[in-house]
Amino acid sequence: MLMKATAIANSNIALVKYWGKRNSDLILPYNSSISMTLDSLNTKTTVEFNKEFSDNEVIINGKTVEGEEKARVVHHLDLLQEFVTEKVFAKVKSESNFPKKAGLASSASGFAALTLAGIKALDQNLTTKELSILSRRGSGSASRSVLGGFVEWNKGSLPDGSDSHAIQIEKEDHWPELSMIVTIISTEEKKVSSRVGMSQTVKTSPFYPAWLDTIESDVEKMKKAISQKDFVLLGQIAENNALKMHATMHTTVPPIIYWESGSLTIMKEVITLREEGKECYFTMDAGPQVKILCLEDDLEVIKSRVNKLDVVRDIMICHPGKQTSLTDDHLF
Amino acid sequence: MLMKATAIANSNIALVKYWGKRNSDLILPYNSSISMTLDSLNTKTTVEFNKEFSDNEVIINGKTVEGEEKARVVHHLDLLQEFVTEKVFAKVKSESNFPKKAGLASSASGFAALTLAGIKALDQNLTTKELSILSRRGSGSASRSVLGGFVEWNKGSLPDGSDSHAIQIEKEDHWPELSMIVTIISTEEKKVSSRVGMSQTVKTSPFYPAWLDTIESDVEKMKKAISQKDFVLLGQIAENNALKMHATMHTTVPPIIYWESGSLTIMKEVITLREEGKECYFTMDAGPQVKILCLEDDLEVIKSRVNKLDVVRDIMICHPGKQTSLTDDHLF
Repeated sequence: MLMKATAIANSNIALVKYWGKRNSDLILPYNSSISMTLDSLNTKTTVEFNKEFSDNEVIINGKTVEGEEKARVVHHLDLLQEFVTEKVFAKVKSESNFPKKAGLASSASGFAALTLAGIKALDQNLTTKELSILSRRGSGSASRSVLGGFVEWNKGSLPDGSDSHAIQIEKEDHWPELSMIVTIISTEEKKVSSRVGMSQTVKTSPFYPAWLDTIESDVEKMKKAISQKDFVLLGQIAENNALKMHATMHTTVPPIIYWESGSLTIMKEVITLREEGKECYFTMDAGPQVKILCLEDDLEVIKSRVNKLDVVRDIMICHPGKQTSLTDDHLF
Repeated sequence: MLMKATAIANSNIALVKYWGKRNSDLILPYNSSISMTLDSLNTKTTVEFNKEFSDNEVIINGKTVEGEEKARVVHHLDLLQEFVTEKVFAKVKSESNFPKKAGLASSASGFAALTLAGIKALDQNLTTKELSILSRRGSGSASRSVLGGFVEWNKGSLPDGSDSHAIQIEKEDHWPELSMIVTIISTEEKKVSSRVGMSQTVKTSPFYPAWLDTIESDVEKMKKAISQKDFVLLGQIAENNALKMHATMHTTVPPIIYWESGSLTIMKEVITLREEGKECYFTMDAGPQVKILCLEDDLEVIKSRVNKLDVVRDIMICHPGKQTSLTDDHLF
């Protein structure tokens, strides 16, 4: 039996954000979230379990990782091996086509790929729901990357987290015109991880309860916008939701400011473009990159305008992408 | 009788901010605020009432103003003339040593000077409390510039606003070492006035009630910080309070973002300086300028670091300043 498998997972960007855990061990969120799985930002991961290995080995983007980063992967491998009787060491090799820990949801695609590859290497067959729950245990947003297109991560209410998983709202072919321009401003790893940041926000931001109070309405409107392909509604809710999340970050003590000066340059350009009649909206995550939402017809004009800004180091164009899947193209 | 008088008023920067009116006609705020009157940013205003004048004339920084800007001044002159039996036209000349409508509280010093000069030109004698209330009717923050040093604007509770005025916490000589570096990033007039902005925030920001809930505690801590000369406490509360106010602005629909990319460059530099052991904190108002709080001993080092940033066009150094006062040095 070959205890080796490879999976490819797409990253996803939330349109209604996830920020804050009600249970940090099981990674259960305070609020439901909605995301778009992206076709262009992906992670490929090969996992091999082998009795002959004398230790775990984790290689991410060509570098053997140690310390906390390795521990997090090994902890997840332990979780996957709860399905089998005997635990063995593993070799994991993972490659992303975009910078990690820079607000591009590398942990989402990373843990979704790790989960599917690991489970397959253990020769287990799980439902999508089970894969989403398992991926969630590695990184909350990974629960959403298991599915393609437009996805809701229902926060659930059960203490064991068995109802906290992703559900597909619409497939990727529902709205192929929906486009996201991911601007890369900085590839530096963020100073405050999402994990630490959200924990501090929950504890200290006076706006956190008010943020949670707005989620149900945002989720309902976003679902409606997606199913009816109402781009203006989708953009308005996504931009406002992102600004609300960042407002809870800014009012954390001490403040968490993921925005860089270049982020603001792009945000203002988006607002200017909109004033000029080009429908586009921004969203941002736990990092400085600005993601611009627009429709296919406006993509080239907006892209060329944004490309002229000095602060933009790179641009990636994304559309709704596929679910996490297996491949025979192993990395080792 | 010479119906002409001149007053000089200092601007003030709030350490606990004012944002939102419960009564926009009387300019009654939803929350109390605390400010420092600044010694270096001032407005000098000469008012002359004259039966011979056939119209009102308002000259601000050398330019005759018309439209809404003139109407606001004339409205205030009408208010002042409620103390006398006959209304006459006036000539007003006003000069500030800093850009107006750019988040530097030009309306605070402007209306405080206009009020005192106008009242004196009408040969009336009012108490400081009465002057503060009258100044408030022109611009909320002007109520604070009437007094020197450290000032609280008590929101009051009476419907007629007769208990909504400034009270001095400490005089300007209480803490002369407290310094403010006002960085000028842009002298462009803001797109969204404070008046319009705060009204939209009250209506649409889901965080506005939570913001108000934090004020009482901030006011108490700030008073303690001032009376005990506890700089770290003053800085922490001021910075957090400013971030909270801007969070309510960012989450207004549509968003109000007074920050420019250069603002963020300076805010991050302040955080970096602090990480390096230099105690300093930022505050911001309804404009892109960043004001840095520090103590005299650190002033030169921090000033020279900030001066090196490309985005900084000018720097003004301020300390606690005096109350609004009369002068015989008329502008015409």
